[in-house]
Amino acid sequence: MAAWFTEYHAQGCGLSLEIKEILHVEHTPYQKLEVVDTVSHGRLLLLDGCVMLTERDEFVYHEMISHLALCTLPAPRQVLVVGGGDGGTVREVLKHVDVERVVLAEIDLAVVRASQHFFPTLASAISDPRCEVYIGDGVTFLAQTAACFDLIIVDSTDPVGAAAGLFQPVFYQLAESHLTSTGMLSAQMESPFWHEDFIRTTTGHLRQVFPIVELATGFVPTYPGGFWCWALASKRYSPRGDFLAARAQRIEGSCRYYSAEHHLGSLMLPRMVRTLLEP
Amino acid sequence: MAAWFTEYHAQGCGLSLEIKEILHVEHTPYQKLEVVDTVSHGRLLLLDGCVMLTERDEFVYHEMISHLALCTLPAPRQVLVVGGGDGGTVREVLKHVDVERVVLAEIDLAVVRASQHFFPTLASAISDPRCEVYIGDGVTFLAQTAACFDLIIVDSTDPVGAAAGLFQPVFYQLAESHLTSTGMLSAQMESPFWHEDFIRTTTGHLRQVFPIVELATGFVPTYPGGFWCWALASKRYSPRGDFLAARAQRIEGSCRYYSAEHHLGSLMLPRMVRTLLEP
Repeated sequence: MAAWFTEYHAQGCGLSLEIKEILHVEHTPYQKLEVVDTVSHGRLLLLDGCVMLTERDEFVYHEMISHLALCTLPAPRQVLVVGGGDGGTVREVLKHVDVERVVLAEIDLAVVRASQHFFPTLASAISDPRCEVYIGDGVTFLAQTAACFDLIIVDSTDPVGAAAGLFQPVFYQLAESHLTSTGMLSAQMESPFWHEDFIRTTTGHLRQVFPIVELATGFVPTYPGGFWCWALASKRYSPRGDFLAARAQRIEGSCRYYSAEHHLGSLMLPRMVRTLLEP
Repeated sequence: MAAWFTEYHAQGCGLSLEIKEILHVEHTPYQKLEVVDTVSHGRLLLLDGCVMLTERDEFVYHEMISHLALCTLPAPRQVLVVGGGDGGTVREVLKHVDVERVVLAEIDLAVVRASQHFFPTLASAISDPRCEVYIGDGVTFLAQTAACFDLIIVDSTDPVGAAAGLFQPVFYQLAESHLTSTGMLSAQMESPFWHEDFIRTTTGHLRQVFPIVELATGFVPTYPGGFWCWALASKRYSPRGDFLAARAQRIEGSCRYYSAEHHLGSLMLPRMVRTLLEP
Protein backbone atom coordinates (compact mmCIF):
# COMPACT_ATOMS: atom_id res chain seq x y z
CA MET A 1 0.00 0.00 0.00
CA ALA A 2 1.32 3.43 -0.94
CA ALA A 3 0.90 6.09 1.76
CA TRP A 4 0.50 9.69 0.70
CA PHE A 5 0.64 13.04 2.49
CA THR A 6 -1.33 15.96 1.05
CA GLU A 7 -0.90 19.58 2.12
CA TYR A 8 -3.94 21.62 1.17
CA HIS A 9 -2.93 25.05 -0.15
CA ALA A 10 -6.47 26.29 -0.50
CA GLN A 11 -9.86 24.71 -0.44
CA GLY A 12 -9.80 22.09 -3.18
CA CYS A 13 -6.09 22.20 -3.99
CA GLY A 14 -3.08 20.43 -2.56
CA LEU A 15 0.36 18.96 -3.12
CA SER A 16 0.57 15.20 -2.63
CA LEU A 17 3.79 13.42 -1.72
CA GLU A 18 4.23 9.69 -1.40
CA ILE A 19 5.73 8.63 1.89
CA LYS A 20 8.50 6.06 2.12
CA GLU A 21 8.81 6.12 5.89
CA ILE A 22 7.76 8.19 8.87
CA LEU A 23 11.03 8.83 10.68
CA HIS A 24 9.98 10.94 13.65
CA VAL A 25 6.83 12.33 15.28
CA GLU A 26 7.00 14.62 18.29
CA HIS A 27 4.65 16.95 20.12
CA THR A 28 6.86 19.83 21.19
CA PRO A 29 5.65 22.58 23.58
CA TYR A 30 4.87 24.66 20.49
CA GLN A 31 3.83 22.38 17.66
CA LYS A 32 3.65 18.92 16.16
CA LEU A 33 6.94 18.09 14.47
CA GLU A 34 7.22 15.29 11.93
CA VAL A 35 10.09 14.08 9.77
CA VAL A 36 9.10 11.94 6.83
CA ASP A 37 11.11 10.32 4.06
CA THR A 38 9.40 10.85 0.69
CA VAL A 39 9.77 9.10 -2.65
CA SER A 40 10.34 12.25 -4.71
CA HIS A 41 11.74 14.96 -2.42
CA GLY A 42 13.98 13.22 0.09
CA ARG A 43 13.33 14.03 3.72
CA LEU A 44 10.48 16.37 4.59
CA LEU A 45 10.06 18.45 7.76
CA LEU A 46 6.46 19.16 8.78
CA LEU A 47 5.37 21.54 11.55
CA ASP A 48 1.71 21.31 12.47
CA GLY A 49 1.17 19.39 9.25
CA CYS A 50 2.63 22.09 6.98
CA VAL A 51 5.65 21.57 4.72
CA MET A 52 8.59 23.51 6.15
CA LEU A 53 11.23 22.13 3.84
CA THR A 54 12.28 19.16 1.78
CA GLU A 55 15.83 18.12 1.01
CA ARG A 56 15.07 18.46 -2.70
CA ASP A 57 14.09 22.13 -2.85
CA GLU A 58 15.09 23.83 0.42
CA PHE A 59 18.05 25.54 -1.25
CA VAL A 60 15.82 28.02 -3.08
CA TYR A 61 14.19 29.39 0.05
CA HIS A 62 17.36 29.55 2.13
CA GLU A 63 19.50 31.12 -0.58
CA MET A 64 16.89 33.76 -1.40
CA ILE A 65 16.13 34.80 2.18
CA SER A 66 19.86 35.28 2.82
CA HIS A 67 21.87 36.44 -0.17
CA LEU A 68 19.64 39.17 -1.59
CA ALA A 69 20.29 41.13 1.59
CA LEU A 70 23.86 39.99 2.20
CA CYS A 71 24.89 40.97 -1.35
CA THR A 72 23.37 44.43 -0.95
CA LEU A 73 24.93 45.36 2.39
CA PRO A 74 28.60 46.35 1.95
CA ALA A 75 29.83 45.04 5.30
CA PRO A 76 27.34 42.76 7.12
CA ARG A 77 29.02 41.59 10.33
CA GLN A 78 26.24 40.92 12.84
CA VAL A 79 23.18 38.93 11.70
CA LEU A 80 20.10 37.80 13.61
CA VAL A 81 17.94 34.95 12.31
CA VAL A 82 14.50 34.81 13.95
CA GLY A 83 13.09 31.32 13.54
CA GLY A 84 15.03 29.15 11.12
CA GLY A 85 15.84 26.46 13.69
CA ASP A 86 16.55 23.98 10.89
CA GLY A 87 19.79 25.86 10.25
CA GLY A 88 19.42 26.31 6.48
CA THR A 89 19.50 30.10 6.70
CA VAL A 90 22.50 30.08 9.05
CA ARG A 91 24.29 27.82 6.56
CA GLU A 92 23.76 30.42 3.81
CA VAL A 93 24.62 33.43 5.99
CA LEU A 94 27.94 31.90 7.03
CA LYS A 95 29.01 31.56 3.40
CA HIS A 96 29.85 35.26 3.73
CA VAL A 97 33.30 35.41 5.29
CA ASP A 98 32.81 38.92 6.65
CA VAL A 99 29.90 37.83 8.85
CA GLU A 100 31.42 37.68 12.33
CA ARG A 101 28.42 36.48 14.30
CA VAL A 102 24.97 35.10 13.60
CA VAL A 103 22.44 34.71 16.40
CA LEU A 104 19.81 32.04 15.77
CA ALA A 105 16.75 32.87 17.87
CA GLU A 106 14.50 29.83 17.59
CA ILE A 107 11.57 29.36 19.91
CA ASP A 108 11.48 25.57 19.69
CA LEU A 109 14.59 23.61 20.69
CA ALA A 110 13.00 20.48 19.22
CA VAL A 111 13.33 21.95 15.69
CA VAL A 112 17.07 22.45 16.15
CA ARG A 113 17.51 18.95 17.57
CA ALA A 114 15.44 17.28 14.86
CA SER A 115 17.35 19.12 12.17
CA GLN A 116 20.71 18.15 13.65
CA HIS A 117 19.60 14.53 13.70
CA PHE A 118 17.67 14.22 10.43
CA PHE A 119 18.93 17.10 8.23
CA PRO A 120 22.68 17.33 8.78
CA THR A 121 23.24 19.23 5.51
CA LEU A 122 20.99 21.99 6.85
CA ALA A 123 22.02 21.98 10.49
CA SER A 124 25.78 21.67 10.07
CA ALA A 125 26.43 25.42 10.33
CA ILE A 126 24.67 25.67 13.69
CA SER A 127 27.81 24.27 15.30
CA ASP A 128 30.01 26.88 13.54
CA PRO A 129 31.81 28.99 16.18
CA ARG A 130 30.31 32.14 14.62
CA CYS A 131 26.76 30.89 15.34
CA GLU A 132 25.14 31.53 18.71
CA VAL A 133 21.87 29.78 19.47
CA TYR A 134 19.22 31.45 21.62
CA ILE A 135 16.25 29.21 22.41
CA GLY A 136 13.29 31.48 23.01
CA ASP A 137 10.89 33.91 21.44
CA GLY A 138 12.57 36.19 18.90
CA VAL A 139 10.49 39.16 20.07
CA THR A 140 11.59 38.62 23.67
CA PHE A 141 15.20 38.28 22.56
CA LEU A 142 15.08 41.58 20.71
CA ALA A 143 13.23 43.37 23.50
CA GLN A 144 15.88 42.32 26.02
CA THR A 145 19.10 42.70 24.08
CA ALA A 146 21.15 45.86 23.63
CA ALA A 147 22.74 44.40 20.49
CA CYS A 148 22.40 45.96 17.07
CA PHE A 149 22.48 43.95 13.86
CA ASP A 150 23.37 44.71 10.27
CA LEU A 151 20.70 42.26 9.12
CA ILE A 152 17.67 40.64 10.73
CA ILE A 153 16.23 37.66 8.84
CA VAL A 154 12.69 36.61 9.74
CA ASP A 155 12.72 32.94 8.77
CA SER A 156 9.41 32.04 10.34
CA THR A 157 6.52 29.69 9.76
CA ASP A 158 3.29 30.94 8.23
CA PRO A 159 1.76 34.01 9.93
CA VAL A 160 -0.48 32.09 12.31
CA GLY A 161 0.03 30.99 15.91
CA ALA A 162 3.43 31.73 17.41
CA ALA A 163 4.69 33.39 14.22
CA ALA A 164 1.78 35.84 13.74
CA GLY A 165 3.49 38.56 15.79
CA LEU A 166 6.51 38.52 13.47
CA PHE A 167 4.46 40.19 10.71
CA GLN A 168 3.01 43.03 12.79
CA PRO A 169 4.02 46.73 12.87
CA VAL A 170 5.09 46.54 16.52
CA PHE A 171 7.63 43.84 15.68
CA TYR A 172 8.93 45.77 12.69
CA GLN A 173 9.44 48.83 14.94
CA LEU A 174 11.34 46.69 17.43
CA ALA A 175 13.47 45.17 14.66
CA GLU A 176 14.18 48.60 13.20
CA SER A 177 15.45 49.81 16.59
CA HIS A 178 17.91 46.90 16.69
CA LEU A 179 19.32 47.51 13.24
CA THR A 180 22.37 49.66 12.53
CA SER A 181 21.77 52.93 10.69
CA THR A 182 22.28 51.10 7.37
CA GLY A 183 20.58 47.86 8.45
CA MET A 184 18.15 45.68 6.60
CA LEU A 185 15.39 43.18 7.33
CA SER A 186 14.70 40.15 5.13
CA ALA A 187 11.51 38.14 5.68
CA GLN A 188 9.60 35.34 4.02
CA MET A 189 6.35 36.82 2.70
CA GLU A 190 4.15 33.85 1.57
CA SER A 191 2.78 33.14 -1.91
CA PRO A 192 1.76 35.79 -4.45
CA PHE A 193 -0.62 33.21 -5.92
CA TRP A 194 -2.60 32.46 -2.76
CA HIS A 195 -1.86 35.22 -0.22
CA GLU A 196 -2.21 38.52 -2.07
CA ASP A 197 -4.04 40.32 0.73
CA PHE A 198 -1.49 39.25 3.31
CA ILE A 199 1.39 40.48 1.15
CA ARG A 200 -0.28 43.82 0.45
CA THR A 201 -1.05 44.39 4.13
CA THR A 202 2.32 43.26 5.44
CA THR A 203 4.44 45.18 2.96
CA GLY A 204 2.31 48.17 3.97
CA HIS A 205 3.33 47.60 7.61
CA LEU A 206 6.97 47.45 6.53
CA ARG A 207 6.65 50.70 4.60
CA GLN A 208 5.46 52.45 7.76
CA VAL A 209 8.85 51.66 9.30
CA PHE A 210 11.40 51.39 6.47
CA PRO A 211 12.02 53.85 3.63
CA ILE A 212 12.93 51.08 1.13
CA VAL A 213 10.74 47.98 0.73
CA GLU A 214 11.20 45.54 -2.16
CA LEU A 215 9.83 42.09 -2.96
CA ALA A 216 11.69 39.25 -4.66
CA THR A 217 10.01 36.15 -6.07
CA GLY A 218 11.27 32.59 -6.34
CA PHE A 219 10.19 29.04 -7.15
CA VAL A 220 9.68 26.73 -4.20
CA PRO A 221 7.92 23.72 -5.71
CA THR A 222 6.72 22.35 -2.36
CA TYR A 223 5.21 25.63 -1.14
CA PRO A 224 1.68 26.75 -2.08
CA GLY A 225 1.52 27.57 -5.77
CA GLY A 226 5.24 26.79 -6.08
CA PHE A 227 5.53 30.58 -6.11
CA TRP A 228 7.01 32.34 -3.08
CA CYS A 229 8.24 35.80 -2.16
CA TRP A 230 10.50 37.56 0.29
CA ALA A 231 10.44 41.16 1.50
CA LEU A 232 13.57 43.26 1.83
CA ALA A 233 13.08 46.29 4.07
CA SER A 234 16.01 48.61 4.32
CA LYS A 235 17.12 51.81 6.00
CA ARG A 236 19.60 52.95 3.36
CA TYR A 237 20.70 50.42 0.73
CA SER A 238 18.42 49.34 -2.10
CA PRO A 239 18.62 45.66 -3.16
CA ARG A 240 18.25 46.88 -6.75
CA GLY A 241 20.21 50.13 -6.91
CA ASP A 242 22.95 49.22 -4.43
CA PHE A 243 23.42 45.56 -5.38
CA LEU A 244 27.08 44.55 -5.05
CA ALA A 245 27.71 42.07 -7.85
CA ALA A 246 31.21 41.29 -6.62
CA ARG A 247 29.79 40.00 -3.32
CA ALA A 248 27.35 37.77 -5.21
CA GLN A 249 30.06 36.45 -7.50
CA ARG A 250 32.11 35.43 -4.48
CA ILE A 251 29.41 33.09 -3.14
CA GLU A 252 27.36 32.07 -6.21
CA GLY A 253 29.57 29.06 -6.91
CA SER A 254 28.24 27.52 -3.70
CA CYS A 255 24.61 28.26 -4.63
CA ARG A 256 22.20 26.32 -6.82
CA TYR A 257 19.51 29.00 -7.29
CA TYR A 258 20.82 32.43 -6.34
CA SER A 259 23.37 34.14 -8.59
CA ALA A 260 24.58 37.62 -9.42
CA GLU A 261 22.45 37.45 -12.57
CA HIS A 262 19.32 36.30 -10.78
CA HIS A 263 19.67 38.75 -7.87
CA LEU A 264 18.33 41.55 -10.05
CA GLY A 265 16.04 39.24 -12.05
CA SER A 266 14.20 38.12 -8.93
CA LEU A 267 13.46 41.75 -8.03
CA MET A 268 12.03 42.62 -11.49
CA LEU A 269 8.55 41.51 -10.60
CA PRO A 270 5.69 40.00 -12.55
CA ARG A 271 2.89 42.51 -12.85
CA MET A 272 0.63 40.63 -10.39
CA VAL A 273 3.33 41.01 -7.71
CA ARG A 274 4.32 44.59 -8.55
CA THR A 275 0.70 45.68 -8.04
CA LEU A 276 0.80 44.28 -4.47
CA LEU A 277 3.39 46.95 -3.63
CA GLU A 278 1.36 49.82 -5.03
CA PRO A 279 -0.28 52.01 -2.37
CA MET B 1 -18.24 12.66 -1.31
CA ALA B 2 -15.46 14.89 -2.58
CA ALA B 3 -13.90 13.79 -5.89
CA TRP B 4 -10.27 14.66 -6.57
CA PHE B 5 -8.04 14.61 -9.63
CA THR B 6 -4.29 14.14 -9.14
CA GLU B 7 -1.71 14.73 -11.84
CA TYR B 8 1.53 12.94 -10.99
CA HIS B 9 4.54 15.11 -11.85
CA ALA B 10 7.07 12.44 -10.97
CA GLN B 11 6.95 9.18 -9.13
CA GLY B 12 5.61 10.00 -5.69
CA CYS B 13 4.58 13.60 -6.33
CA GLY B 14 1.43 15.19 -7.68
CA LEU B 15 -0.94 18.13 -7.70
CA SER B 16 -4.43 17.35 -6.41
CA LEU B 17 -7.48 19.36 -7.42
CA GLU B 18 -10.98 18.85 -6.09
CA ILE B 19 -13.57 18.41 -8.80
CA LYS B 20 -16.92 20.17 -8.71
CA GLU B 21 -18.24 18.71 -11.93
CA ILE B 22 -17.05 16.82 -14.99
CA LEU B 23 -18.35 18.93 -17.86
CA HIS B 24 -17.12 17.05 -20.92
CA VAL B 25 -15.28 13.84 -21.85
CA GLU B 26 -14.37 13.05 -25.44
CA HIS B 27 -12.08 10.62 -27.22
CA THR B 28 -10.81 12.60 -30.20
CA PRO B 29 -8.77 10.99 -33.01
CA TYR B 30 -5.65 12.18 -31.18
CA GLN B 31 -6.26 12.15 -27.46
CA LYS B 32 -8.67 12.00 -24.56
CA LEU B 33 -10.07 15.46 -23.90
CA GLU B 34 -11.73 16.35 -20.60
CA VAL B 35 -13.16 19.58 -19.25
CA VAL B 36 -13.64 19.67 -15.50
CA ASP B 37 -14.87 22.37 -13.15
CA THR B 38 -12.62 22.57 -10.07
CA VAL B 39 -13.17 24.10 -6.64
CA SER B 40 -9.98 26.17 -6.61
CA HIS B 41 -8.93 26.85 -10.23
CA GLY B 42 -12.11 27.27 -12.22
CA ARG B 43 -12.40 25.18 -15.35
CA LEU B 44 -9.59 22.77 -16.19
CA LEU B 45 -8.70 21.35 -19.62
CA LEU B 46 -7.06 17.91 -19.58
CA LEU B 47 -5.52 16.16 -22.58
CA ASP B 48 -4.64 12.51 -22.00
CA GLY B 49 -5.01 13.17 -18.27
CA CYS B 50 -2.48 16.03 -18.17
CA VAL B 51 -3.32 19.57 -17.09
CA MET B 52 -3.23 21.83 -20.16
CA LEU B 53 -4.64 24.90 -18.51
CA THR B 54 -6.92 26.19 -15.79
CA GLU B 55 -8.90 29.41 -15.86
CA ARG B 56 -7.08 30.54 -12.71
CA ASP B 57 -3.49 30.49 -13.98
CA GLU B 58 -3.49 30.17 -17.79
CA PHE B 59 -2.58 33.83 -18.21
CA VAL B 60 1.01 33.25 -17.11
CA TYR B 61 1.78 30.66 -19.76
CA HIS B 62 0.02 32.47 -22.60
CA GLU B 63 1.48 35.89 -21.83
CA MET B 64 5.01 34.53 -21.51
CA ILE B 65 5.00 32.42 -24.67
CA SER B 66 3.79 35.43 -26.68
CA HIS B 67 5.02 38.78 -25.41
CA LEU B 68 8.70 38.06 -24.78
CA ALA B 69 9.09 37.53 -28.53
CA LEU B 70 6.56 40.11 -29.68
CA CYS B 71 8.19 42.85 -27.59
CA THR B 72 11.63 42.02 -29.01
CA LEU B 73 10.71 42.01 -32.70
CA PRO B 74 10.34 45.57 -34.02
CA ALA B 75 7.61 44.81 -36.56
CA PRO B 76 5.99 41.37 -36.18
CA ARG B 77 3.25 41.10 -38.83
CA GLN B 78 2.89 37.38 -39.64
CA VAL B 79 2.71 34.89 -36.76
CA LEU B 80 2.27 31.12 -36.76
CA VAL B 81 1.05 29.30 -33.65
CA VAL B 82 1.69 25.53 -33.77
CA GLY B 83 -0.66 23.81 -31.34
CA GLY B 84 -2.47 26.20 -29.01
CA GLY B 85 -5.94 25.17 -30.12
CA ASP B 86 -7.42 26.59 -26.93
CA GLY B 87 -6.81 30.07 -28.37
CA GLY B 88 -5.01 31.58 -25.37
CA THR B 89 -1.85 32.31 -27.32
CA VAL B 90 -3.78 33.80 -30.25
CA ARG B 91 -5.56 36.05 -27.76
CA GLU B 92 -2.21 37.39 -26.53
CA VAL B 93 -0.66 37.70 -30.01
CA LEU B 94 -3.59 39.78 -31.25
CA LYS B 95 -3.08 42.33 -28.48
CA HIS B 96 -0.31 43.63 -30.75
CA VAL B 97 -2.01 45.90 -33.26
CA ASP B 98 0.76 45.55 -35.85
CA VAL B 99 0.17 41.80 -36.17
CA GLU B 100 -1.70 41.46 -39.45
CA ARG B 101 -2.26 37.71 -39.51
CA VAL B 102 -1.91 34.79 -37.13
CA VAL B 103 -2.21 31.22 -38.40
CA LEU B 104 -3.32 28.73 -35.76
CA ALA B 105 -2.14 25.26 -36.85
CA GLU B 106 -3.84 22.85 -34.45
CA ILE B 107 -3.91 19.15 -35.14
CA ASP B 108 -7.07 18.44 -33.18
CA LEU B 109 -10.28 20.26 -34.12
CA ALA B 110 -11.88 18.96 -30.93
CA VAL B 111 -9.57 21.16 -28.85
CA VAL B 112 -10.71 24.28 -30.70
CA ARG B 113 -14.37 23.32 -30.38
CA ALA B 114 -14.11 22.46 -26.70
CA SER B 115 -12.34 25.72 -25.99
CA GLN B 116 -14.94 27.74 -27.88
CA HIS B 117 -17.68 26.06 -25.86
CA PHE B 118 -16.12 25.84 -22.39
CA PHE B 119 -13.37 28.51 -22.35
CA PRO B 120 -14.77 31.54 -24.18
CA THR B 121 -12.25 33.92 -22.55
CA LEU B 122 -9.46 31.91 -24.18
CA ALA B 123 -11.07 31.11 -27.51
CA SER B 124 -12.63 34.47 -28.29
CA ALA B 125 -9.73 35.67 -30.44
CA ILE B 126 -9.96 32.62 -32.73
CA SER B 127 -12.88 34.33 -34.45
CA ASP B 128 -10.90 37.54 -34.96
CA PRO B 129 -10.62 38.29 -38.70
CA ARG B 130 -6.81 38.34 -38.39
CA CYS B 131 -6.80 34.70 -37.21
CA GLU B 132 -6.76 31.87 -39.72
CA VAL B 133 -7.30 28.33 -38.43
CA TYR B 134 -5.56 25.37 -40.08
CA ILE B 135 -6.63 22.00 -38.68
CA GLY B 136 -3.77 19.59 -39.24
CA ASP B 137 -0.24 18.74 -38.26
CA GLY B 138 1.96 21.82 -37.82
CA VAL B 139 4.91 20.07 -39.44
CA THR B 140 2.83 19.24 -42.53
CA PHE B 141 1.54 22.78 -42.67
CA LEU B 142 5.05 24.22 -42.65
CA ALA B 143 6.36 21.68 -45.15
CA GLN B 144 3.62 22.59 -47.60
CA THR B 145 3.37 26.33 -47.26
CA ALA B 146 5.46 28.93 -49.03
CA ALA B 147 4.67 31.48 -46.35
CA CYS B 148 7.29 33.10 -44.14
CA PHE B 149 6.60 34.27 -40.61
CA ASP B 150 8.11 36.86 -38.32
CA LEU B 151 7.40 34.61 -35.34
CA ILE B 152 6.60 30.92 -34.90
CA ILE B 153 5.21 29.97 -31.49
CA VAL B 154 5.34 26.29 -30.54
CA ASP B 155 2.47 26.04 -28.07
CA SER B 156 2.44 22.27 -27.81
CA THR B 157 1.68 19.58 -25.28
CA ASP B 158 4.50 17.74 -23.52
CA PRO B 159 7.15 16.25 -25.83
CA VAL B 160 5.55 12.82 -26.12
CA GLY B 161 3.22 11.36 -28.75
CA ALA B 162 2.05 13.75 -31.46
CA ALA B 163 4.07 16.65 -30.03
CA ALA B 164 7.45 14.86 -29.81
CA GLY B 165 8.49 15.92 -33.32
CA LEU B 166 8.07 19.59 -32.42
CA PHE B 167 11.20 19.43 -30.25
CA GLN B 168 13.52 17.77 -32.77
CA PRO B 169 16.31 19.33 -34.90
CA VAL B 170 14.52 18.53 -38.17
CA PHE B 171 11.51 20.59 -37.08
CA TYR B 172 13.67 23.48 -35.95
CA GLN B 173 15.38 23.46 -39.39
CA LEU B 174 11.98 23.53 -41.06
CA ALA B 175 10.80 26.36 -38.82
CA GLU B 176 13.98 28.33 -39.46
CA SER B 177 13.40 28.08 -43.21
CA HIS B 178 9.93 29.59 -42.78
CA LEU B 179 11.06 32.53 -40.70
CA THR B 180 12.00 35.91 -42.13
CA SER B 181 15.67 36.90 -41.94
CA THR B 182 15.01 38.53 -38.56
CA GLY B 183 12.50 35.93 -37.37
CA MET B 184 12.15 34.25 -34.01
CA LEU B 185 10.79 31.04 -32.53
CA SER B 186 9.17 30.87 -29.07
CA ALA B 187 8.45 27.47 -27.52
CA GLN B 188 7.33 26.03 -24.22
CA MET B 189 10.27 24.14 -22.73
CA GLU B 190 8.93 22.17 -19.72
CA SER B 191 9.97 22.46 -16.06
CA PRO B 192 13.50 23.29 -14.88
CA PHE B 193 12.65 21.41 -11.69
CA TRP B 194 11.70 18.07 -13.26
CA HIS B 195 12.95 18.09 -16.86
CA GLU B 196 16.56 19.28 -16.75
CA ASP B 197 17.87 16.75 -19.27
CA PHE B 198 15.12 17.55 -21.75
CA ILE B 199 15.82 21.28 -21.52
CA ARG B 200 19.57 20.83 -21.92
CA THR B 201 19.13 18.57 -24.96
CA THR B 202 16.43 20.64 -26.64
CA THR B 203 18.12 24.01 -26.21
CA GLY B 204 21.17 22.28 -27.71
CA HIS B 205 19.07 21.37 -30.76
CA LEU B 206 17.93 24.98 -31.03
CA ARG B 207 21.50 26.25 -30.84
CA GLN B 208 22.40 24.11 -33.84
CA VAL B 209 19.92 26.15 -35.89
CA PHE B 210 19.66 29.60 -34.30
CA PRO B 211 22.50 31.95 -33.32
CA ILE B 212 20.61 33.34 -30.31
CA VAL B 213 18.90 31.04 -27.78
CA GLU B 214 17.59 32.30 -24.44
CA LEU B 215 15.39 30.81 -21.72
CA ALA B 216 12.79 32.65 -19.64
CA THR B 217 11.24 31.25 -16.48
CA GLY B 218 7.77 31.73 -15.03
CA PHE B 219 5.39 30.49 -12.36
CA VAL B 220 2.59 28.23 -13.54
CA PRO B 221 1.17 26.81 -10.30
CA THR B 222 -0.68 23.94 -12.01
CA TYR B 223 2.33 22.73 -14.04
CA PRO B 224 4.93 20.32 -12.62
CA GLY B 225 6.95 22.06 -9.91
CA GLY B 226 4.97 25.26 -10.52
CA PHE B 227 8.13 26.30 -12.37
CA TRP B 228 8.09 26.49 -16.16
CA CYS B 229 10.29 27.83 -18.91
CA TRP B 230 10.15 28.98 -22.51
CA ALA B 231 12.86 29.08 -25.14
CA LEU B 232 13.39 32.04 -27.45
CA ALA B 233 15.44 31.16 -30.53
CA SER B 234 16.25 34.04 -32.80
CA LYS B 235 18.04 34.86 -36.03
CA ARG B 236 18.95 38.43 -35.23
CA TYR B 237 17.24 40.10 -32.28
CA SER B 238 18.11 39.25 -28.68
CA PRO B 239 15.22 39.19 -26.18
CA ARG B 240 17.62 40.79 -23.69
CA GLY B 241 19.73 43.19 -25.72
CA ASP B 242 17.08 44.23 -28.24
CA PHE B 243 14.05 44.34 -25.91
CA LEU B 244 11.68 47.13 -26.94
CA ALA B 245 10.26 48.50 -23.70
CA ALA B 246 7.83 50.80 -25.50
CA ARG B 247 6.16 47.80 -27.15
CA ALA B 248 5.79 46.12 -23.75
CA GLN B 249 4.39 49.25 -22.16
CA ARG B 250 1.72 49.43 -24.86
CA ILE B 251 0.28 46.01 -23.96
CA GLU B 252 1.21 45.46 -20.30
CA GLY B 253 -2.00 47.10 -19.06
CA SER B 254 -3.90 44.16 -20.53
CA CYS B 255 -1.58 41.60 -18.89
CA ARG B 256 -1.61 40.16 -15.39
CA TYR B 257 1.87 38.59 -15.34
CA TYR B 258 4.03 39.97 -18.16
CA SER B 259 5.29 43.54 -17.96
CA ALA B 260 8.12 45.66 -19.31
CA GLU B 261 9.82 45.26 -15.92
CA HIS B 262 9.42 41.50 -15.82
CA HIS B 263 10.42 40.92 -19.46
CA LEU B 264 14.07 41.34 -18.51
CA GLY B 265 13.63 39.85 -15.04
CA SER B 266 12.30 36.57 -16.45
CA LEU B 267 15.41 36.23 -18.63
CA MET B 268 17.87 36.77 -15.73
CA LEU B 269 17.92 33.14 -14.77
CA PRO B 270 18.35 31.29 -11.50
CA ARG B 271 21.69 29.49 -11.49
CA MET B 272 20.08 26.03 -11.87
CA VAL B 273 18.50 27.21 -15.15
CA ARG B 274 21.50 29.13 -16.46
CA THR B 275 23.62 25.99 -16.16
CA LEU B 276 21.20 24.15 -18.47
CA LEU B 277 22.24 26.52 -21.27
CA GLU B 278 25.94 25.97 -20.77
CA PRO B 279 27.57 23.74 -23.39
